[in-house]
Amino acid sequence: MGNNILIGQSGGPTVAINATLSGIVKGCREYYPDAVYYGARNGVKGILNETLVPLNEQLATEEQAYALETTPSAALGSCRVKLPKDLSDPMYDQIFAVFAKYGIGVFFYIGGNDSMDTVEKLSRKAAELGSDLRVVGVPKTIDNDLPFTDHTPGFGSAAKYVATTVQEIACDCAVYSDPSVTIVEIMGRDAGWLTAAAGIPRLYGEDCADLIYLPEVDFDSDRFLEDLRRKFRERTTLVVAVSEGIHTSDGTLYGSDPNGKKDVFGHTLLSGAAHRLCELVKAELGCKSRSVELNVPQRCASHCLSATDISESVLLGKAAVKAVFEGKTGVMITYLRNDDPAYSVRFGDVPVAQVANKTKYVPLEHISPNGCDVSDELLRQIAPLIAGELEIPRRGGLPCHFKVRFE
Amino acid sequence: MGNNILIGQSGGPTVAINATLSGIVKGCREYYPDAVYYGARNGVKGILNETLVPLNEQLATEEQAYALETTPSAALGSCRVKLPKDLSDPMYDQIFAVFAKYGIGVFFYIGGNDSMDTVEKLSRKAAELGSDLRVVGVPKTIDNDLPFTDHTPGFGSAAKYVATTVQEIACDCAVYSDPSVTIVEIMGRDAGWLTAAAGIPRLYGEDCADLIYLPEVDFDSDRFLEDLRRKFRERTTLVVAVSEGIHTSDGTLYGSDPNGKKDVFGHTLLSGAAHRLCELVKAELGCKSRSVELNVPQRCASHCLSATDISESVLLGKAAVKAVFEGKTGVMITYLRNDDPAYSVRFGDVPVAQVANKTKYVPLEHISPNGCDVSDELLRQIAPLIAGELEIPRRGGLPCHFKVRFE
Repeated sequence: MGNNILIGQSGGPTVAINATLSGIVKGCREYYPDAVYYGARNGVKGILNETLVPLNEQLATEEQAYALETTPSAALGSCRVKLPKDLSDPMYDQIFAVFAKYGIGVFFYIGGNDSMDTVEKLSRKAAELGSDLRVVGVPKTIDNDLPFTDHTPGFGSAAKYVATTVQEIACDCAVYSDPSVTIVEIMGRDAGWLTAAAGIPRLYGEDCADLIYLPEVDFDSDRFLEDLRRKFRERTTLVVAVSEGIHTSDGTLYGSDPNGKKDVFGHTLLSGAAHRLCELVKAELGCKSRSVELNVPQRCASHCLSATDISESVLLGKAAVKAVFEGKTGVMITYLRNDDPAYSVRFGDVPVAQVANKTKYVPLEHISPNGCDVSDELLRQIAPLIAGELEIPRRGGLPCHFKVRFE
Repeated sequence: MGNNILIGQSGGPTVAINATLSGIVKGCREYYPDAVYYGARNGVKGILNETLVPLNEQLATEEQAYALETTPSAALGSCRVKLPKDLSDPMYDQIFAVFAKYGIGVFFYIGGNDSMDTVEKLSRKAAELGSDLRVVGVPKTIDNDLPFTDHTPGFGSAAKYVATTVQEIACDCAVYSDPSVTIVEIMGRDAGWLTAAAGIPRLYGEDCADLIYLPEVDFDSDRFLEDLRRKFRERTTLVVAVSEGIHTSDGTLYGSDPNGKKDVFGHTLLSGAAHRLCELVKAELGCKSRSVELNVPQRCASHCLSATDISESVLLGKAAVKAVFEGKTGVMITYLRNDDPAYSVRFGDVPVAQVANKTKYVPLEHISPNGCDVSDELLRQIAPLIAGELEIPRRGGLPCHFKVRFE
């Protein structure tokens, strides 16, 4: 196949997915200086629609690169397309025809669990075709739920936003002298990594969530009320962090949509675990209660970036190019944490077939036996990922966001 | 009365109310170097309960002052106490007895509309008693709805948070190629200043809210759907900013609690204008829709401070002390915008009786005739208030919040 390179972004956006894109472009410049590196608009959709844009010129300077790295969301656009199971589906021929037409020899796909499924299928199809196309997955997800990597790009900044905001909310709630319960709902359908971050401020003696409920253990509303009654003996204003994915022992999501709608991957759509708990508290404890759904700002608040997360995400992109240059294909690039007292990472890779559609949960040993807190050891593991601030480009006090021009 | 000074904070917290507290302490040090300056815990409640704490030692250094100025919420605690209408109520005797006991000659009350009511009553009671107590109100509210002042402390930072977050949300929403409507609900029960801030990014060519609905004009859901259909001709992913206080022409709040609960001041409790609109969009337009309630982070996100707001709030506190030193009482300190091309303010004051329980609305000439947008002129008026960033004290990437010690 060809000498050119294609990059796509897929799945829910994060604040680090553009940093990884920038890192891949930087890596391309180093390892493939003569290639055209295209961006596919809206992931796999952009391949099918042939909306590819060369990025060489648009990302030529360090200033452009830094602007991209500090812009949230996916500059190339995203999609939620799932490729057919059957590799003989004509969609694959269409994709490989576009690869041939643009002389694409390498395809980088930045995404989460579902995107790694795409990487896996395309690399399998390439092998079946005897094509020398190389396909590499680069992880991203604020949920931190991909296996084989110490953590995921985008998680550190999301965790920083969650920890910072919960600390600020706790400070806000503490002003009144009447008993109150503030329930903060945090993203993370299956895995509670991001919800756990609501506890980090306590490592520094700061206010944070008094109770933390992850989706890894069953949620019991009677036990929850008991936990609140116990905590009220210590404090007047309580802050509770709950994952959007908390569920009862029969598997029913506590905040599930009563109509039971599902998205294209068959995941149940969620709405309002915090809101429901808030109503429960008012009814059963008779005190003031308020729910705060942190919502999309968790994944797009670039005004609260973790410098560690962003600089690692750029390096991960470069590491992906290096891996391809060294002949790798069908792999996902990973972070491996070095076994030093001071936090640092190196890069590895894993066959993407091992990753696709798997979930990395918070280990149960880090969840307190009654299910309402996490261990300090877990918080200390996450803490370095949120460290460091970045000065983002601004005008008039507002961020300047980088836009890829498609026309 | 005495030579000492008492400071209280009241009403909903903001990120600037502590900066004003710090400014008052700095002013006291300058104008009343020999006084004890007490903080009342939980506003007027702290007077009634005699929980007063001397602040001279706790706020002695510039480092302590800066930590306080960059800490959200109300470091002294707040309350929502409304003083009795009848000035012969024994509660007033109780309050003045505490003033006498602690030698309080000046009382500064930092708060919003309802708190100015307290200042007005106490200064009237002082006059009735022939007391030389001076009582001065210092405004705060993220709603920016106090009359006689160009704007209010806390509004600039809240507006910066709203503008920044809406810009980031718009960037996030734009990644998918399917039509969608994201509805962002913004605080401001009666006045739409904060909601208007969702339009500021467009002054700099950045993404922001496509439609903006303020509570100053009646909301009509048919017209809203028409507005969306029209906007869909220009863009695929729409972002709508709505005030929590939007209401139909008969005065019914669009997001009102069906049970019609009211708070102690008789205000109807709100819940979910954005959520209701989201359901409407799904049902009527059949496209994806999502609601995001910005919620309490609007008033406590100190990680997104406006340097202009905070430095002005400190100076306003100092100006309040200067006003008292010059003999003023029964006034609220105000910002007056200088008539220069470059933005700057000076300080003034107004008899608090003129302010109490009055609301400053967004002038109708700044709202587009069909009620779905605001003028660029309005945005340019607000824009300087959000300018400038402050580096807040941090540890491990998280803010270090200042705490007043009450024991």
